[in-house]
Amino acid sequence: MRQGRPRSVGRLVTLIENASPALPEITAALSRLPGEAYVVGLTGPPGVGKSTTAAALVAVLRAQGQRVGVLAVDPTSPFSGGAVLGDRVRMQQHALDPEVHIRSMATRGHLGGLAVAAAQALRVLAAAGCTTVVVETVGVGQSEVDVAALADVTVVLLAPGMGDGVQAAKAGILEVADVLVVNKADRDGTRAVVRELRNALALTPRPEGVWHPPVLTTVASEGTGVAELVAALDRFRAGAVASGEAGRRRGERARREVEGLALALLQDRLQTTAGHSLDQLAEAVRDGRTDPYAAAAALVAELLA
Amino acid sequence: MRQGRPRSVGRLVTLIENASPALPEITAALSRLPGEAYVVGLTGPPGVGKSTTAAALVAVLRAQGQRVGVLAVDPTSPFSGGAVLGDRVRMQQHALDPEVHIRSMATRGHLGGLAVAAAQALRVLAAAGCTTVVVETVGVGQSEVDVAALADVTVVLLAPGMGDGVQAAKAGILEVADVLVVNKADRDGTRAVVRELRNALALTPRPEGVWHPPVLTTVASEGTGVAELVAALDRFRAGAVASGEAGRRRGERARREVEGLALALLQDRLQTTAGHSLDQLAEAVRDGRTDPYAAAAALVAELLA
Repeated sequence: MRQGRPRSVGRLVTLIENASPALPEITAALSRLPGEAYVVGLTGPPGVGKSTTAAALVAVLRAQGQRVGVLAVDPTSPFSGGAVLGDRVRMQQHALDPEVHIRSMATRGHLGGLAVAAAQALRVLAAAGCTTVVVETVGVGQSEVDVAALADVTVVLLAPGMGDGVQAAKAGILEVADVLVVNKADRDGTRAVVRELRNALALTPRPEGVWHPPVLTTVASEGTGVAELVAALDRFRAGAVASGEAGRRRGERARREVEGLALALLQDRLQTTAGHSLDQLAEAVRDGRTDPYAAAAALVAELLA
Repeated sequence: MRQGRPRSVGRLVTLIENASPALPEITAALSRLPGEAYVVGLTGPPGVGKSTTAAALVAVLRAQGQRVGVLAVDPTSPFSGGAVLGDRVRMQQHALDPEVHIRSMATRGHLGGLAVAAAQALRVLAAAGCTTVVVETVGVGQSEVDVAALADVTVVLLAPGMGDGVQAAKAGILEVADVLVVNKADRDGTRAVVRELRNALALTPRPEGVWHPPVLTTVASEGTGVAELVAALDRFRAGAVASGEAGRRRGERARREVEGLALALLQDRLQTTAGHSLDQLAEAVRDGRTDPYAAAAALVAELLA
C-alpha cells in the first residue's frame, strides 16, 4: 500500500468501509506512517457537475506531477453500499492512471458513521503517497457538512439555472464554502448567479486579513477555469497555514473523530451493558409510564454509576 | 393546545424545534396526556410530488372527519432552520382549516437530533387531537430513514421518468416501504415503473400472512387514487395491530428515542466533564502521537471510571 499499489490501497479502503474488526489495529498502524494529503472537499447540489469537476481537478494536479486520491462519499445510500452512480464514468479518463486512486464509499454501519470511515480512508490515501485527495459528497445535508469537516478546504459548486436548488442551497452553503465555483459557466444566467453569490457573501462581512471566499467560474467539462481553481486552493492553503487556521481545522477534525468514536463505543455500552434497562425503559415510554427524557437520564445514570 | 388551537400547537412545536430548556418538563407533561395519532411517513426523491400527495391525503382524511397533522421534516437544512420550500404553497388549500395542523421542522441542534425533536412534535399533535399525522421527509438518506422509523406506516413515493433517481432510490427504498405509490401516473412510463417495482419486490419473497407492500398509482394533483391509498393504509394498520407489528414498531420507536437522548446526554458529558481530556487527546491524534481508536477508548474509560 505504501508503494501506492492500487489493489492494496483498494483492499485497505474496503476493510475500512466494511468496518473490519481489525480497524483499530489498522488505524493504529496508519497513524504511525508518514504522509500527509491536502484534502479538498467538493460539495454542492446534484447536477452541478461535481464528478466532472473532480476529474478536471485531477487532470491539473496530475500535470503538476502529484499522486492524487478521489473519495466519493454517498451518505444517501444507507443500505446498498453502492457506488456513487455515474461517477465512475466521468472518472474514466483517470481510471488507468496508477497515480490516481479513485474510491466510492457509502454508509455501512461503520463505528462512528461515514465521516469517521472517510477519515480512515483519507489516512490510507495519504499513507499511499497521495499529496492531494478530492473528497466529493452528494448534496448539502448534515452528513455532507460532517464530511466537509474532514476537508482542509471546502469548494462549493453551483450551476446556473438550478432555480430553487440554488436558493435552497445558498442559505447553508455560504457557511461551509472556502471557495465558490459556478460551473457550467457557458450557460445563460451565469453572471446572475455569480452576482447573487457575491451579494450574499457581502451580507456577512469579514474583517481584513481573513480569507474572503472567491466566486470563480468554470466549464469543467472543457477544463476552463480549473487551473484558476487550483490556484485559489493553493492561495487558501498558504494563508491557512500562515494564520494557523490549517492546524485549527485539523485539530477540530481530530476532535470530531475521537468524539464520534467515543460516542459509538458508548452506544455499544448502552446496547450491551445497559441493554436490559434500555428495553425496560423503552417499554415504559411506549406505554406512557414514563417520558423519554426521564428514561434517558435514568439510563445514563446507570451507565455512569 | 389540548383544544387544538392552532397558535398554541404552533408555539409548543416551536419550543421543541428551538430546543427550549423546558423541553424535559414539556415532554413529561405531554406523556401524561391521552391522545394517539396514527403516523403516516411519506418519503421519496425530490420531485415526485410528496407535498401534493400529503395535501391530497389530508383532503380524504378531513372528509372522514379526522383532525389531521402534517409535519414536514427537512434534515437537509442544518443551518437555516427554514421551512421546506414550496410546501406551504401546496398545503394552502388546508391553511385556513383549523382542524389541520401544518408544520415544517428543520435541524436546530436539538438534543438527540431531528428524529427526537420530530417525536416530541408528534406527541404535541396527538395531544392536540390529531388522529392522523402525515410526516413528510425530503429524499431518502440516513436522516430520512431515522425519521421514517417514527412512522406507524411508511409510504414511499416515486414517479415515472425519474431515470437514475428511481434506480438509485429503489435499492434502499424497498426496505423501508410498507406501501409504494407511483404518483403522476398519468405520465408515460408509469406501467414500466410499476412493473419494475413489482419485480424488485418479488426478489425478496415474504411468507404467507406477512404484509406484502402493494404498488399503487395516483395522480395526487387531481386526487386520483388517493382514496385507495388511504384504504391501503387502513388495511396495513388493521393487520399490524392484529399481528403485534404495530406495538413492536412503537416499542422500537421508544427505544430509539431513549437511546438518542441518552447518547446526547453522554455527548454533553464528553464535552463538559471530559472536555479537557478530549482536547488533549484530539491534539495527540492531530499530531500523530496516538490514533483515534486508542484516544476514544481512553476517553470512554475516563468517563465510565
